[in-house]
Amino acid sequence: MNENEFLEKMRAIATHPGARGLADDAALLTFGRHRMVFTHDMLVESVHFLSSAAPADVAWKLLAVNLSDLAAMGARPIGVLMGYSLGGDPEWDEKFANGLKDALERFGVPLLGGDTVALPAGTLRSLSMTAIGEAKGHLVPSRSGAEPGDFLYVSGPLGDGWAGLQIATETIHPTDMLARDRLLAAYNRPQPMLAAGRALSSLVSAMMDISDGLLIDADRIARASGLGIEISLDRIPLSPEFEAVVGRDRAARMLAATAGDDYQLLFTARTATVLPVPATRIGRCVPGAGLRLHDGAEPVPLPDRLGYIHAQAKAS
Amino acid sequence: MNENEFLEKMRAIATHPGARGLADDAALLTFGRHRMVFTHDMLVESVHFLSSAAPADVAWKLLAVNLSDLAAMGARPIGVLMGYSLGGDPEWDEKFANGLKDALERFGVPLLGGDTVALPAGTLRSLSMTAIGEAKGHLVPSRSGAEPGDFLYVSGPLGDGWAGLQIATETIHPTDMLARDRLLAAYNRPQPMLAAGRALSSLVSAMMDISDGLLIDADRIARASGLGIEISLDRIPLSPEFEAVVGRDRAARMLAATAGDDYQLLFTARTATVLPVPATRIGRCVPGAGLRLHDGAEPVPLPDRLGYIHAQAKAS
Repeated sequence: MNENEFLEKMRAIATHPGARGLADDAALLTFGRHRMVFTHDMLVESVHFLSSAAPADVAWKLLAVNLSDLAAMGARPIGVLMGYSLGGDPEWDEKFANGLKDALERFGVPLLGGDTVALPAGTLRSLSMTAIGEAKGHLVPSRSGAEPGDFLYVSGPLGDGWAGLQIATETIHPTDMLARDRLLAAYNRPQPMLAAGRALSSLVSAMMDISDGLLIDADRIARASGLGIEISLDRIPLSPEFEAVVGRDRAARMLAATAGDDYQLLFTARTATVLPVPATRIGRCVPGAGLRLHDGAEPVPLPDRLGYIHAQAKAS
Repeated sequence: MNENEFLEKMRAIATHPGARGLADDAALLTFGRHRMVFTHDMLVESVHFLSSAAPADVAWKLLAVNLSDLAAMGARPIGVLMGYSLGGDPEWDEKFANGLKDALERFGVPLLGGDTVALPAGTLRSLSMTAIGEAKGHLVPSRSGAEPGDFLYVSGPLGDGWAGLQIATETIHPTDMLARDRLLAAYNRPQPMLAAGRALSSLVSAMMDISDGLLIDADRIARASGLGIEISLDRIPLSPEFEAVVGRDRAARMLAATAGDDYQLLFTARTATVLPVPATRIGRCVPGAGLRLHDGAEPVPLPDRLGYIHAQAKAS
């Protein structure tokens, strides 16, 4: 049983309608007139964060990646539960605790419970969080509602998280210190698009957050909705910092299209839909299957790797 | 910052009333007339389960320890989310997946979502689960409601889980194969007391599940309720298998009183309360603070170690 087979097995187990076949960013349960959304994400040292990462940044990211899943469902955060591993470094733990407190306050989210385990020395830190949210109305976005003809949008620039990781690992050495700091911040302190998610939730035909890369996540919408998606590489929004440090040519845009850690919202909407938040139209849903890329008028072959599969498979 | 300081920090952060100060087995949130209960537990290889454990037993235990927390709140399970680490052993993963399916079916609990991470080779497996439940009525048990004069009860025999662990680690070698199998099953397949918890939830003054040991958990009720608790060692219920393999003298009862992994319910109730489920009265709440033990009429000093602190600190 390989990873995909394991996930297939989990999908076969998760037959409850609220699980949505483990295809969406979060599970959905209805209690009376309340539509509750649940998501669970893990961060593992050296897989999802660098061993050298600042503990407060890890705390922020643990919260932000979970809130980003709520954002994709248009949900307001209600609270979180955390599983924490004490790693034998009290200073690290204290900085993490202070960072968690700050991040929770920043997003106005209460810590409701959790579990703390002291790991044997030398074990990689493994953190887990469950976020509970309440969806805005009756229409809770899924990945499966796109229809041929719908436009494909992204809520903001892509590639900044990737560029920040390259700077953090000293693969890229920018001379522009402001750009350097902003890209590092994009990697270390991703912003879950909660307000945009709520504003969009009743208007989109499909929505998810981009955690593994635009192309792999667009492919997930295409598969879930049973259609194809055409993406214009030249329309992918890039930040001035990304352009300054990485570039803006086709290779740079392909990097931005396959980079993880951005946490922008990716969504489809009918062509007549007027969007209440800024977003960039980057493509269109078409009959058929799979992704097609072009750069201006020129078709571009799909890259071998559609996104950042950091040995992780996300179910919700 | 040591472990206790970390937990104190978490309690200081968790100021939302639903968190109940991280003092209970689960968090409580109200949506309309629905009272939802949330708990999050981790199991780490070599901390909470043996590396030699059968994968299906680990899956069972991951579910059972979370459901046991719901039982302590009198809640009906609604669903679970799981964080799973692929450990580079596909056969193990497949057996775990099959065991999880069986355990979920056994308890009628849907898998709603989760996250799967492939860990670097050689990393200890780290599993997390969040269980969602719905409390029965308006009265959701806490640890803080006991009053002087209340009786202290336990829902079933203690020590079987501990004895099973000794057998699994070949510290004890029973000759009675039936007793051996039943004690191993108590350790490997703990039974969350869901029906008892629901039947008791509106009648008890305080309730929790015993995961770390009778004495340490009774001490938690005493502290949360601001009183003392007297416990009769000679009244602690033991199974015939435990008596056959470990004994029934004071030393054996003290082992049972300080052993973890039993997952019986520990609760207090007014003296006039008629219990709807079988339970054994083992003590009484008194004014003051702390625990007092006696064996028949004879006072017994508290042991140095009140329970099984497997380097784990449980918040909910």
